[in-house]
Amino acid sequence: MVDTELNRGLEGIAVAETRLSYIDGEAGTLIIGGFPVSELAANATFEESVFLLLNDRLPTADELVAFRTSLASSRELTDETRSGLKRAAAEGVDPMDALRMGVAAANLGAETATAQQAVERTIAVFPTVVAAYWRYRQGDDPVAPRDDLRHAANYLYMLTGTEPSDAATAGLETYLNTVIDHGLNASTFTARVVVSTESDVVSAATAAVGSLKGPLHGGAPGPVLEMLMEVHESGDAEGYVRRKLAAGERLMGFGHRVYRVRDPRAAVLSAAAERFYEAGGDADFFETVSAFEATAVELLAAHKPDRRLDTNVEYYTAALLFGVGIPRDLFTTTFAVARVGGWMAHCLEQAADNRIIRPRSRYVGATDRTWTPIDDR
Amino acid sequence: MVDTELNRGLEGIAVAETRLSYIDGEAGTLIIGGFPVSELAANATFEESVFLLLNDRLPTADELVAFRTSLASSRELTDETRSGLKRAAAEGVDPMDALRMGVAAANLGAETATAQQAVERTIAVFPTVVAAYWRYRQGDDPVAPRDDLRHAANYLYMLTGTEPSDAATAGLETYLNTVIDHGLNASTFTARVVVSTESDVVSAATAAVGSLKGPLHGGAPGPVLEMLMEVHESGDAEGYVRRKLAAGERLMGFGHRVYRVRDPRAAVLSAAAERFYEAGGDADFFETVSAFEATAVELLAAHKPDRRLDTNVEYYTAALLFGVGIPRDLFTTTFAVARVGGWMAHCLEQAADNRIIRPRSRYVGATDRTWTPIDDR
Repeated sequence: MVDTELNRGLEGIAVAETRLSYIDGEAGTLIIGGFPVSELAANATFEESVFLLLNDRLPTADELVAFRTSLASSRELTDETRSGLKRAAAEGVDPMDALRMGVAAANLGAETATAQQAVERTIAVFPTVVAAYWRYRQGDDPVAPRDDLRHAANYLYMLTGTEPSDAATAGLETYLNTVIDHGLNASTFTARVVVSTESDVVSAATAAVGSLKGPLHGGAPGPVLEMLMEVHESGDAEGYVRRKLAAGERLMGFGHRVYRVRDPRAAVLSAAAERFYEAGGDADFFETVSAFEATAVELLAAHKPDRRLDTNVEYYTAALLFGVGIPRDLFTTTFAVARVGGWMAHCLEQAADNRIIRPRSRYVGATDRTWTPIDDR
Repeated sequence: MVDTELNRGLEGIAVAETRLSYIDGEAGTLIIGGFPVSELAANATFEESVFLLLNDRLPTADELVAFRTSLASSRELTDETRSGLKRAAAEGVDPMDALRMGVAAANLGAETATAQQAVERTIAVFPTVVAAYWRYRQGDDPVAPRDDLRHAANYLYMLTGTEPSDAATAGLETYLNTVIDHGLNASTFTARVVVSTESDVVSAATAAVGSLKGPLHGGAPGPVLEMLMEVHESGDAEGYVRRKLAAGERLMGFGHRVYRVRDPRAAVLSAAAERFYEAGGDADFFETVSAFEATAVELLAAHKPDRRLDTNVEYYTAALLFGVGIPRDLFTTTFAVARVGGWMAHCLEQAADNRIIRPRSRYVGATDRTWTPIDDR
């Protein structure tokens, strides 16, 4: 019964050709839609990044207005979806579970006759679902989306009920652009697997949210923030790092499975955080963040001279999202708000040249059982 | 940038070892939980099949009572989930979309502290979601589940409000057992990919429903039923087949990607359908079904002498589900009601010895774009 090669993680196998993003972990390169991440992330609005992934080029001014308008018109949830989110908030479910529920209902109350419309609708409702859930969790009513605000600004607005500063919008937008796509990570692969049966993009997005929820995938910017808070309060970065290393513990926010040098996204987010905090954030806190990075990198290098451990994407994600006002509990859902842009583009790419993705299993069970009546067991 | 083997369908690669089911397409063998499908399907209640997959052995009488009781106590939906299904019914969404929504909310209102409880809860609510949606679609209120009825009987009861005959329960139960697991099909693979990030089983089940929805996966017992109805009315099986073959069209319900001989599930379901129709179903209709199979197999053999085209699982699924009273629009959701047993067992198997499933992609896009301000595009 052993007729196939066993590869449990599918390591080293490419299951798709993509023009969406490219990672070179050795060189520390990340290309998104043909642009180095540093070129794209700080220049583009989120709507431009999404358009780029969907169309393989930047929009003209007219196209961008049309695309923004179309997305903004698809933000509303049905009453029933809101009721479900309210119940989820009352039960205090994981925000990712709430997002999964809201997204699963995303084609309710929407006219999505074409795949393109379904894609836009799906991307558009993510922030509304997250924000509505969060408002209920705080005991407040949801804030209705405002279609005169850009995607990123409207997300912050729906969370707080207050129009965000330009600095906060720019900071969040850089984050969303930076993490919008990253090769064939587990959630993106999940989305492509679902679409490969010719299922729809809402099913794919729902599945991808469920995959991103897993701790092996969704990452840990939340714990990074706790670490930064603790160090900010104690003022003793060196002591914190030395205690962790002495205890043989991993230092959160440093090191990456793929990148052997500094995660290129860390550089982009570091610069974005610096811009944000200089424009009026808590400068003391950012001072802690910068100093802690320098201290930690130096001590890590001394501790493990044979392995470079630089800050990864989670480190400055924590600092930046905290700065712009995203609650710590919503870090992973905010990641999803960004990544759904990549998921949807991957779905269209998969559908355009599809082959059902269906590996095999190897049977290791019994083969010749015979039925035993219940009274004889 | 070409550093990995490209295998777009992951053909010939085993991504998991499993003791849940084994398919030998050449020999026409299907083993489920160590039993030949013919041995298991007609003997077991659905609860016994699920217990078998979860525990790799049949339950004792006491264990079966406890397991049935536990499943039966987890069937209820929250009011908010019902509201969502009512809205979905009012909009006439695809029953699989409704199921996806209902399942995505399956850990609302449930105490599921352990993975085992979450697995049981997930399996238990599938029929309730499908039946509630269907009742709303008919303009009726949902029928509350009855915890004195077995899983299969309660499903039929919730659909109709009437306690089903023993023959109908037995027929449905044989169907559920027959299709509860079938190697690493696309939806089962999807569930394992989601759980491989250490996400939860509700996320996996929701994702799997989305995958099963795809026409390349979920199958076509609905169209088979239409074909049988047409032939039953005209009484001209031979004419129907000859017209199809002359037009170069595929004959629904015949042939299978994996099985080179008769699908072993077809034999089980054929016998189950015969038992059901003999016990009081529409004997004339079953006569058509049997006669059509004989006619079609003979004409197909003459048409393509080099390839055996036998009835597949969909052929007798259509006849059997129609007989026991499952509406044609619910054939795929009823497939999900069965297959969730396999999905959940695969999730636990994956989690027990996990490795994140994460293949790669090959980049074929641009690499050196530079930013163009919007007014220059």
